[in-house]
Amino acid sequence: MKAVILQGSSAAPPPPVALAYATRASPHTTLPTSQRPRDTAPTSRHGVVALSDTGAQWALVNMAANVADRLQADAAAHNHIGWCDAQHRAIVLTDAQVDHVAGLLSLRDGSPIDLYATPAVFEALSRSLPVLPVLQHYCGVHWHIIPVAGETQCANFRIEQLPHLEFTALATQGPTPPYLAEHETQSAAGHSIAIAVRDRDSGQRLFCAPGAVALGYTELDWMRSADCVLIDGLTTWPADEAQDDWLARRKVLLGVAQRAQGGACPDGFECASDGMVIDL
Amino acid sequence: MKAVILQGSSAAPPPPVALAYATRASPHTTLPTSQRPRDTAPTSRHGVVALSDTGAQWALVNMAANVADRLQADAAAHNHIGWCDAQHRAIVLTDAQVDHVAGLLSLRDGSPIDLYATPAVFEALSRSLPVLPVLQHYCGVHWHIIPVAGETQCANFRIEQLPHLEFTALATQGPTPPYLAEHETQSAAGHSIAIAVRDRDSGQRLFCAPGAVALGYTELDWMRSADCVLIDGLTTWPADEAQDDWLARRKVLLGVAQRAQGGACPDGFECASDGMVIDL
Repeated sequence: MKAVILQGSSAAPPPPVALAYATRASPHTTLPTSQRPRDTAPTSRHGVVALSDTGAQWALVNMAANVADRLQADAAAHNHIGWCDAQHRAIVLTDAQVDHVAGLLSLRDGSPIDLYATPAVFEALSRSLPVLPVLQHYCGVHWHIIPVAGETQCANFRIEQLPHLEFTALATQGPTPPYLAEHETQSAAGHSIAIAVRDRDSGQRLFCAPGAVALGYTELDWMRSADCVLIDGLTTWPADEAQDDWLARRKVLLGVAQRAQGGACPDGFECASDGMVIDL
Repeated sequence: MKAVILQGSSAAPPPPVALAYATRASPHTTLPTSQRPRDTAPTSRHGVVALSDTGAQWALVNMAANVADRLQADAAAHNHIGWCDAQHRAIVLTDAQVDHVAGLLSLRDGSPIDLYATPAVFEALSRSLPVLPVLQHYCGVHWHIIPVAGETQCANFRIEQLPHLEFTALATQGPTPPYLAEHETQSAAGHSIAIAVRDRDSGQRLFCAPGAVALGYTELDWMRSADCVLIDGLTTWPADEAQDDWLARRKVLLGVAQRAQGGACPDGFECASDGMVIDL
C-alpha cells in the first residue's frame, strides 16, 4: 500500500487566526465539537490523500480545488500518480465540506468519476451544493454508496481499481458543513467518516481521518492497530487515551494549520507536506 | 486604466481536441452558435481579467478555480493586484459557465464579495449551481445586479471601488451553461455579456468579451471604437466586418486554445499570457 499527500502547488498559508485556533484545539484537547470556534478558522485545509495498492492505480480521498487544478496541470504530479489518465477516476469523500468537494468541479473535462461517499454526503452534493447534477453534464459521476447512515456506524467497501485493499468507513463526529439546512444535519451517522484501509497482501493497515473530527473509542480501536495514522491537526479524542500502545510506525498530521506553529508537531507526529510518500 | 490577464499558475494545456475545435471556429468564421461543437471542447479557458482605474483597487472579470487559488496563495500575485486584501472583493461575471464561477467557492474565507452580474446569472448561481447561498455561510456576497434582461440588451453600471471607470454591459449570444434546465435558458438576454469600460479621466476604452460568444453589430460598434480589445479565441462576428477601421492599439485573444496552434495568433492579435499587463 502506498499513500501520497497532495496539498496542491499553492497550499495557502493560514491567516493569523489559525494560530490561536490551532492552539485552542490541538490534538490533545477534548473540546466538544459544539464548542469549537470553527467559523473563525480558515476552511482550506487541503486534506487530500492519494491511495494505491500496487502503485499502478490510485484513489483520492477528498478533492480540494487547488489539488484538482494541480493534478490536471502539473505534468510531474500527473505522471506521478497517473490518476487523471485513468479510465475511471476514483474519489472517496469523507464529508461534504467545501474544501473537500469544490475540486470536483475542476475535474469536469475528464473521464467519469467513480465517487464513494455516504448517503448524507451524496444528498448534500445533490441538493444544497449540487455539484453532482452539474457534473452529469460534463464528465459524469458513478455513485458508489458507502452505507454509513442512520444507526449504521461502520461499513466495509471496495474500490474496483484497488483490488488489493479493503476499506472500512467509520462514522465520526465532525463539524457539519455550514451550508446545510438544519434538517439535513439530523441524520444519526454519515456526515463525516474516517477510513481504515487494510492491504490484503501485506496485512498493513492505514487509518485516515482528514476532517477535524472528534474520534470515539470505536475509531480509536482502529487507529491503535494501524501501521500508519493520517489525521487532521484538529482531530480530538478522549483525554484518557494514551498513545503508548499505538502500533503506528508513522503518524502524520494533515492540514496546514501546523505551519502557523513554526512547523512544530506534537510529539511522535510528522507534519504532512506536499508530495509526502508513505510506503506500507 | 490597467488590465492584467490572470490564467493561474497552472493553466492546463488543452487536450488535442481543442486544436480541431479552434480551427473549426476561429475568430474569422461565422458558425452559428447552435452549430458549434461546444460539448467536445475543453471547458477550462481561464478567461480572468483584472481591471483597475488607478492601480490602487481592482475588480476581477470572472473567477476560474485555479486563478482563485493562485490569487490567495501566490504572494507575488497577491501583492501585485492587492485584490484579496481589499475590504470588499469586486467580481464581474460575464456568464455562469463553470469555468467562470467555480473559483468563487475558493474565495470563501475572505472579506465579502461584491458581485456584479445579470439576473440570469444570479438565478443560475442561486438555483442550478447555488454557490451564492453556500457563500452566504462563509464570506457573504453583496449582489449588484446588472440590468441586462428581457428586452434590455445594454446597461451601464459602476463599481464602487473603481470610481474613475464607467462600465457598459452588452448582451451577447454565447453558449448557455449545459447544467441549466431548458426553461432557465429562455430569457431573451443576460445569459452572457460583453463589457465595455471607459476611463473617465483618460477617455481610453476597453472592450472585453471573455466567453466564446457570437458578437452582433451593436457589440461590434463598441469594439471598433475601443483602444484595447480582449476577446476569447472562439469569438465570432459577422463575416462582412473588416478590422481595418478598428481603433484598438492592442487586440488580445484570451483563453488557452491558441497554444494548441503553436502560439500563433490571427493577424493583428496577441495571445494572452499569464500576468500580461495592459496599460491604457
